[in-house]
Amino acid sequence: MLNRTAEAVDFALTHGMLQYSPDGKLRHAPLCTSPYHISYDNFHFMVQNSLTLQSLTQIISMDKELLIDLHAPLQQHDPFIATLLDIARSSLSNESPWRFHLSRSDFMLDNKTSTPKFVEINTIAASFHGLAQMVAQLQNNLARRNLINTKAEENPVLSHLVAALERAVNAINYENPCLLMVVQPDERNVFDQRLLQYAVQEQLNMPFWRMSLDEVAQRAKRKGDTLYIENQPVAMVYLRSGYGPNDYDTPDAVAGRILIEQCHCLRVPDIFTQLAGTKLTQHYMCSNAAMKQYLSPEQVDLLAPSIAPMYRLDDMSGNKSMRDIACLTPECYVLKPQREGGGHNLYYDDIPPFLENLPLEQYSLYVLMDKINAITHPAELVVNQHSQNIEAISEIGWYGAALYHDSQCYFNQNLGYLVRTKSVDSNEGGVCSGYACLNAISVDKPQ
Amino acid sequence: MLNRTAEAVDFALTHGMLQYSPDGKLRHAPLCTSPYHISYDNFHFMVQNSLTLQSLTQIISMDKELLIDLHAPLQQHDPFIATLLDIARSSLSNESPWRFHLSRSDFMLDNKTSTPKFVEINTIAASFHGLAQMVAQLQNNLARRNLINTKAEENPVLSHLVAALERAVNAINYENPCLLMVVQPDERNVFDQRLLQYAVQEQLNMPFWRMSLDEVAQRAKRKGDTLYIENQPVAMVYLRSGYGPNDYDTPDAVAGRILIEQCHCLRVPDIFTQLAGTKLTQHYMCSNAAMKQYLSPEQVDLLAPSIAPMYRLDDMSGNKSMRDIACLTPECYVLKPQREGGGHNLYYDDIPPFLENLPLEQYSLYVLMDKINAITHPAELVVNQHSQNIEAISEIGWYGAALYHDSQCYFNQNLGYLVRTKSVDSNEGGVCSGYACLNAISVDKPQ
Repeated sequence: MLNRTAEAVDFALTHGMLQYSPDGKLRHAPLCTSPYHISYDNFHFMVQNSLTLQSLTQIISMDKELLIDLHAPLQQHDPFIATLLDIARSSLSNESPWRFHLSRSDFMLDNKTSTPKFVEINTIAASFHGLAQMVAQLQNNLARRNLINTKAEENPVLSHLVAALERAVNAINYENPCLLMVVQPDERNVFDQRLLQYAVQEQLNMPFWRMSLDEVAQRAKRKGDTLYIENQPVAMVYLRSGYGPNDYDTPDAVAGRILIEQCHCLRVPDIFTQLAGTKLTQHYMCSNAAMKQYLSPEQVDLLAPSIAPMYRLDDMSGNKSMRDIACLTPECYVLKPQREGGGHNLYYDDIPPFLENLPLEQYSLYVLMDKINAITHPAELVVNQHSQNIEAISEIGWYGAALYHDSQCYFNQNLGYLVRTKSVDSNEGGVCSGYACLNAISVDKPQ
Repeated sequence: MLNRTAEAVDFALTHGMLQYSPDGKLRHAPLCTSPYHISYDNFHFMVQNSLTLQSLTQIISMDKELLIDLHAPLQQHDPFIATLLDIARSSLSNESPWRFHLSRSDFMLDNKTSTPKFVEINTIAASFHGLAQMVAQLQNNLARRNLINTKAEENPVLSHLVAALERAVNAINYENPCLLMVVQPDERNVFDQRLLQYAVQEQLNMPFWRMSLDEVAQRAKRKGDTLYIENQPVAMVYLRSGYGPNDYDTPDAVAGRILIEQCHCLRVPDIFTQLAGTKLTQHYMCSNAAMKQYLSPEQVDLLAPSIAPMYRLDDMSGNKSMRDIACLTPECYVLKPQREGGGHNLYYDDIPPFLENLPLEQYSLYVLMDKINAITHPAELVVNQHSQNIEAISEIGWYGAALYHDSQCYFNQNLGYLVRTKSVDSNEGGVCSGYACLNAISVDKPQ
């Protein structure tokens, strides 16, 4: 009579948990009906380390020279990195004192040790705040009605994010300011963005613009250090575009980004924070040397066990290059290019033929990471109104926000979490296979 | 850059303003972007009269004999009315003291006098509480961003409805109660119902069931005067089904309704309140004699000017029957059968051939009403993501709730409003033609 799938679907649809399918159809976002269970120790461990990673990224983002030097060798072979470096160099003289930083650090639980391993930190367009909050509400609605057995950990990401954003906008203290979200023209995940926009508009009574980078070039104006839209100063530019090569397809798009980067508005992120989030920088900052240089011994002690080793392709292990080792035992590695947004990594049998055809001069474009073999667990996934019970793995992301004035940190805080659950084997078939489904966590609280 | 239609559509989709199209596709509910303007005098006049009409209906619903006598002549020719009377007769002995009453009284502004004329009162399944609240929020979101010029009158129907419902459930004072919404199996307007359900669940921590009438017969049990679902007493049964012939297609559906009517739970509505909402009863209760019998002189003075005359087909005017007059001047009348839910009335050229073929013994199934010629106004309608500027008419409904213990009224209050706007001429073509679009009002407040 009360069908769990139908109840979950209607809750999702009624609460803005929507996406457009690739062919433009309106759908609920893929979701799980029951929370993913983690221990309190792992919960605490991930929150702490996500704050450390956010602060580490922020420290490195201030070392502009380091980031340019780190990425410069790639520019000849990667036009996208070259574009980012052009933008970075054009904004080297921007000495804006306030910086507001949003990130999401993703972890998976290792199936041998049951401890969290760090996957990556996202410093640009870390999305799903709205949908993540809603899926916890959805599961708690099901739990209250005994349609599932376990309550989800409350996850008020949106309200925490809006509060952080308000503090940042108040700090920069523009008179009669407006806000700008930079979006891709054909965004399928628009409802997640809208949930954030409406939450901001409820709380902050200021104009909220949505523009593509092209529109920024055409409609926004710089006067001195300040960006203006229709004669109102822009206090914050929040980028949900600009993280992939296609976002810079036109000269106007590049010009739009450069315009933003030359202004003192809060740029979320600025170009250097974006560069601090590449796989290349992650390889650098997660080295023992860098961790020891930038972090306290206590922070290193807590963070180090979560770090999965990363390698450059020409790193040597004994008398073999890591490229050769990855070709021999590809099941042990993930091959990552300098790209954000999912779908770019290579696994298993796809690695050897790719590496064998890769010219030496392009080795620097990739990093290898030890593959994390995640704990598997049963899950009910719901995709396009159909449900499927499968064996799944989950990735847990921790949202953070930080506000800095020069090197002084005003806050560095956790905003909430995101869980994405998918079938262990994307090849197993069925309607839900291949979809990363929004999920929540449940946590053993200490007695 | 900010496209009003796109902004309205995304707000609607993100806030649960959804419907399924007849072919099962997910769509935003048809809507208007700018509020319909009315004067404060008309606002006040309609609120007052809607409360009078609600209380008049409630008084008449207590006169069970009158309602059975009024409808008995129809039962031979109208199986649906016969079913309702069977249900009514089977519950004659139900002496439950508490009654909770929801209604919506609909008005249109007359184009000659600019004053409101009463169209009808809906005593069963008066829907759109959730969507009505949301469309006012939507228009105010647009207004705040200067995408429209006029703010909508706030319309917190859902929260007012939930508060009224909570008072009623507290009054009946069952231990550990649950709530039941009776729904049609293939409801396209399910999201409006869900918005109400979630608002109730947020406020009242009690199980909330959705069942068809068939499922009620199969799953609910009566013990003494109390209805139980899974051993919990049902404090309130809210009917969003049971108002049309198709809702009683199976013996179980009729049995389900009878089961409900034999219990002391709050029935929203009980069968007699449903009968008090038919066109036949409206013809009776809006007569001068009935108004004078049941209402105070002040109430009659305020209500009477809003009443459009209604007739039985065999009423005589001079030496002609109203049937003959309607055949000669059909443009002056609306022909209404005893049906709820829209789409049943006949207008203009459809009236004469229908009446000419109607057997004498079926005259009693219909009432005629003077056609209200509503004020027209320009409007931007948005249907399935396309907008159209047209000349439109609007119907304004006023939601009410009332709680009675025997004849003592605990409250009789307005909950908010609903505006539905549609093109003057449904034949004019275009994507928006023929759709009743959700709208809000703006009101001139007195200085």
